[in-house]
Amino acid sequence: MKKIAVLGSTGSIGTQTLDVVSMHPGLYQVEGLAAGANTSLLLEQAQHYRPKKVSVATKELAEQIREQLPPGTELYWGDEGLIEVAAGTEADTVVTAVMGSMGLPSTLAAIEAGKQIGLANKETLVTAGHIVTEKARKKGVKLLPIDSEHSAIFQCLNGERMQDVAGITLTASGGSFRDLTREQLKDVTVEQALQHPNWSMGAKITIDSATMVNKGLEVIEAHWLFGLSYDQIRVLLHPESIIHSFVEFKDTSIIAQLGNPDMRVPIQYALTYPDRMVSPAKPLSLAEAGSLHFREMDYERFPCLRLAFECGKMGGTAPTAFNAANEVAVARFLRGEISFLAIEDIIARVLDRHHNTVNPDLPAIEACDHEVRATAAVL
Amino acid sequence: MKKIAVLGSTGSIGTQTLDVVSMHPGLYQVEGLAAGANTSLLLEQAQHYRPKKVSVATKELAEQIREQLPPGTELYWGDEGLIEVAAGTEADTVVTAVMGSMGLPSTLAAIEAGKQIGLANKETLVTAGHIVTEKARKKGVKLLPIDSEHSAIFQCLNGERMQDVAGITLTASGGSFRDLTREQLKDVTVEQALQHPNWSMGAKITIDSATMVNKGLEVIEAHWLFGLSYDQIRVLLHPESIIHSFVEFKDTSIIAQLGNPDMRVPIQYALTYPDRMVSPAKPLSLAEAGSLHFREMDYERFPCLRLAFECGKMGGTAPTAFNAANEVAVARFLRGEISFLAIEDIIARVLDRHHNTVNPDLPAIEACDHEVRATAAVL
Repeated sequence: MKKIAVLGSTGSIGTQTLDVVSMHPGLYQVEGLAAGANTSLLLEQAQHYRPKKVSVATKELAEQIREQLPPGTELYWGDEGLIEVAAGTEADTVVTAVMGSMGLPSTLAAIEAGKQIGLANKETLVTAGHIVTEKARKKGVKLLPIDSEHSAIFQCLNGERMQDVAGITLTASGGSFRDLTREQLKDVTVEQALQHPNWSMGAKITIDSATMVNKGLEVIEAHWLFGLSYDQIRVLLHPESIIHSFVEFKDTSIIAQLGNPDMRVPIQYALTYPDRMVSPAKPLSLAEAGSLHFREMDYERFPCLRLAFECGKMGGTAPTAFNAANEVAVARFLRGEISFLAIEDIIARVLDRHHNTVNPDLPAIEACDHEVRATAAVL
Repeated sequence: MKKIAVLGSTGSIGTQTLDVVSMHPGLYQVEGLAAGANTSLLLEQAQHYRPKKVSVATKELAEQIREQLPPGTELYWGDEGLIEVAAGTEADTVVTAVMGSMGLPSTLAAIEAGKQIGLANKETLVTAGHIVTEKARKKGVKLLPIDSEHSAIFQCLNGERMQDVAGITLTASGGSFRDLTREQLKDVTVEQALQHPNWSMGAKITIDSATMVNKGLEVIEAHWLFGLSYDQIRVLLHPESIIHSFVEFKDTSIIAQLGNPDMRVPIQYALTYPDRMVSPAKPLSLAEAGSLHFREMDYERFPCLRLAFECGKMGGTAPTAFNAANEVAVARFLRGEISFLAIEDIIARVLDRHHNTVNPDLPAIEACDHEVRATAAVL
């Protein structure tokens, strides 16, 4: 029996992680669950999976649910509660699926405690890749990617030597606006932006797909996860999202991972690695798909991706600034305060003003994050 | 330095194997070369690679070249010469690229001598898969496939457990006549049949691609190479031949190997496995390819493939009968004696008359081969 804890258990990745657990009765014991404000779902999960520890966002929320928890489940809250669930249980594997920069301290705590990481929090590697990968190396902890693209690369590297890798290519559907010109992008609405062609995801990540910021964050993650230079990482437009990503080796062989879009597959792989288990996902029929299409990425059309590569190469706090500026800009777009194209404009202007700190420690990363958020809110 | 011997050194796979050797000076020592009747090319190869032993088809051919061999190269001929080059040198790896059923005894001799096999001779596994795989297992010898499809599967299985495999899919371009109806096939000429859309190959295998016999032989080979049941092996029409084949795992993940059609890649992989080396093959650009297409295999349109599956499932001497009938029928078609559709007709009629011998030994396989050839020549 494998013991797991889930940080962000009520979100999209969190609930699908628990779906995977439920599909394999007797194989997994849920040791801990951490949620934000969705206490009713957390209570349901606690009743069902009987974790040793749960955590919610605030003390007030904790008090509201205290009486309804099953016997034997300890209750925590806030940043400390999240860290308690990440590092203070007997879990072998911690799935880090909380959103945003709060994922970082809890992931580091889990690594420090020697737990394998099922990594679904992008900010962890984007803002502090140098710290996280170094700590994981020291502790002998595996970072098992849960993103479909990184899981694909991870699977394609099975049994291969990193020195034989020429490069990797992350595929990008192009998001909800892939066929619009920049002129047409000027007037798109929030409702239009939220229609992703292939994946059903949260609002933030759906917008990030349309701006290609999401792919940019994935590029930076891939750099850290696989120890590749940015020149070895490419992005290819692939509208069908069926080839999830691929590795090119120095003999020109390409190994690709394919499947229907279903996050339960990469989630399960992170939990079962290096083995595989039966999944309820729909098997892919290429004959049914009929055809797959590919186009060169257009960095003029998707300038945020170009900015992400630049920030990644720059290193230091630049990726933190990129990420924080984007988070604020997307929130402002979703509130109707700014236009779609203003998102990239805000990111670019933040980066223009950014003074890069090389090899930042956690306080420096946090300081950059706060400063950029304040700036981006009023640009 | 790896020591290799090449059986069939003047053929398409043989010459490309030596190309790969030449690309990596200092990495390979050619210990032996066996050819048929192309003595002028063999002499060139002998001068260039300075093998310890060479062999040609007959004593007469041997006498013709004896004086022109470099000093230190021993000369052999006939079936025994082929076996001498296969098993009587210090080669670690023997590439078995001779055509037809004469590949079997020499491959078995090489396995018996403990040599790794770069397997490019189809008949070896088709007619005697049970004997060859058992001997390889006993001797701890790896069978490294050189066919692009089997090399693809082999690469996709890297680092994976066979128990996690749901099935494999061999892709098929459809050959020179893939868009013709059966009605239109009635009057096709030899010249038309020899135009393969993607690969430049010998006449026999080009015809075998058009009849889908080639894919049928590959299915039987895959059964033996990977220890899969016939229900786990599928064939998919993929006109571009860019996805060379793929493996589906039980979690619905598909791992595929892709590349431009260039036999030097799988040949080199068999020589460098488990490592990879730089190849002069043109890297694949999916953006340049633009799109990939897939269609269900049509077993009514390609009845030879259905027959191959049936023979494979039947086992015994049925695959030998299938293969021998096809060889004779293709030779007759190439000589203009019979029509294109008569090839499948002859195979089907041979199989109708075939009395299957279960678990045949080598003499039984040989007897079946001879008997079928005699029958197929006059049907």
